Amino acid sequence: MSTFIYFADIFGVIVFALSGALMAGRYRLDPFGVMVLAAVTAVGGGTIRDIILGAPVFWTVQNEYVAVIFVTALLTILLIRQPKLVPKRFMHVADAFGLALFAVLGTHKALSYEQTILTSVIMGTITGVAGGMIRDIICNRIPLILRQEIYALAAMLGSFLFVGLTYIGLSEPIAGSLAMAGALILRLAGIYWKVSLPAFHFDDELKD
Amino acid sequence: MSTFIYFADIFGVIVFALSGALMAGRYRLDPFGVMVLAAVTAVGGGTIRDIILGAPVFWTVQNEYVAVIFVTALLTILLIRQPKLVPKRFMHVADAFGLALFAVLGTHKALSYEQTILTSVIMGTITGVAGGMIRDIICNRIPLILRQEIYALAAMLGSFLFVGLTYIGLSEPIAGSLAMAGALILRLAGIYWKVSLPAFHFDDELKD
Amino acid sequence: MSTFIYFADIFGVIVFALSGALMAGRYRLDPFGVMVLAAVTAVGGGTIRDIILGAPVFWTVQNEYVAVIFVTALLTILLIRQPKLVPKRFMHVADAFGLALFAVLGTHKALSYEQTILTSVIMGTITGVAGGMIRDIICNRIPLILRQEIYALAAMLGSFLFVGLTYIGLSEPIAGSLAMAGALILRLAGIYWKVSLPAFHFDDELKD
Repeated sequence: MSTFIYFADIFGVIVFALSGALMAGRYRLDPFGVMVLAAVTAVGGGTIRDIILGAPVFWTVQNEYVAVIFVTALLTILLIRQPKLVPKRFMHVADAFGLALFAVLGTHKALSYEQTILTSVIMGTITGVAGGMIRDIICNRIPLILRQEIYALAAMLGSFLFVGLTYIGLSEPIAGSLAMAGALILRLAGIYWKVSLPAFHFDDELKD
Repeated sequence: MSTFIYFADIFGVIVFALSGALMAGRYRLDPFGVMVLAAVTAVGGGTIRDIILGAPVFWTVQNEYVAVIFVTALLTILLIRQPKLVPKRFMHVADAFGLALFAVLGTHKALSYEQTILTSVIMGTITGVAGGMIRDIICNRIPLILRQEIYALAAMLGSFLFVGLTYIGLSEPIAGSLAMAGALILRLAGIYWKVSLPAFHFDDELKD
Repeated sequence: MSTFIYFADIFGVIVFALSGALMAGRYRLDPFGVMVLAAVTAVGGGTIRDIILGAPVFWTVQNEYVAVIFVTALLTILLIRQPKLVPKRFMHVADAFGLALFAVLGTHKALSYEQTILTSVIMGTITGVAGGMIRDIICNRIPLILRQEIYALAAMLGSFLFVGLTYIGLSEPIAGSLAMAGALILRLAGIYWKVSLPAFHFDDELKD
């Protein structure tokens, strides 16, 4: 893994941990709760991916991820007394960056474990979105990403692009950069124009 | 796995995916949310089973399950504008069929991984009911199957019967058919006569 | 594992199973629901630990844990018609004992799987607290331990103490006893003086 990817990955973990820690503040959790939500959001997706792949769970081997999450949670508690200190726009863009990166890295890892193309795309998507889903489930909310502006779809696009571009012969760094750019642009466009996929619904009479 | 079992298994996946997709419609999820709920309901139980068994997660190897879920979710979105199009009775019977089949297949798989009888019965039950539980947890509902008419008990009966009948020497196809029939009948009887196990409750003073 | 540890472990499982079963009564679940909540509370943490470690999940090999949970759930249903029969104080102390023990045993297991110190501390904490978290998530509650009086912190302290004390050369039984005592005392002090860590919160404007 190149140095750039490594630091980008750490940046993604910080952003996701921050998003979990801020959610914890909204529900008045104690410092341990802040840490749990930060950790679950940041490494939840990668943990599920590694368990399904039968790979050693990455943060058990690379403890720096845990340290980064711990420091992020601590600084959030100490410094962020006003959520305004974290501009909404910064969070959205940083989160979109983390989403795109995690999706591509997750896809790459699945391919390196000799998974099929379809499985690898799913693994990439899980890496990108599952952490935020678990965070929402713990906080007793229906995961936003199941309703939000083209969130998961962007992760899927990144995964698909990475698979497709390496398949047609591009080198991994180039394919990865293009795939990330694609996912990032789609997600940012979704936020900017507030585009959501049309919700699926009906007046339900299947009430139990 | 015989051809009959294979197609029955695919049918079970379709029914469970449909039940997840319909639930998504009730909560106005976007198409990606419909897919997630369909997938989680259909393969969640088997995924937990395989992870606990240390087996390769079945759908990562057999991608046709993923394709079937994708098509089911898509068709649900496109065709089912009125839930009346899916008669309640059909859903109940089809779901009971899936439950019985998954329980028996899950038990069979656990036994083939040399698990104990008790563990295999638990694995069969998990295969049958865990998907629906995760679906409900994501949707922020207390899982119905923890309260519903003899749902999980039917899965357990199927698992027990399969273990018992193969133990006394019946061939797997015969033991499996009888076990499925037993689970199916118990579940359908529970629905038909609206029999629930008596709820366990008390006026609680252990409030935290 | 010494005979003492073994019986202490079984005692911890009983207490956690009882806490899950009592929660089920509060939500009027059926007997199967009582069993599921009892099981999830009692072995959920250890199951996640074993899956992350890549170890065989302990209760699939040692079925006596399942039997103990089954009997505990059954007796709870049959005998406990008034929750007053289980004094709050007894539950708190017994639960603190289970928490301390599970944390130390979980840490010990992680170390024996050659995990790093940090990973082992996390595994110990997960073993102690994750079961209760899953119980609360199933019941559609924000996990109390993310807000409660020094609950998870006590588990963490026990894990840290065990790692530290064995590192400086104490034998495992002595390090384990001291670590358990430390965790137990911290938790009981938290309950007795109703000490909670200060909640992290702010008036949130990051509403989605």
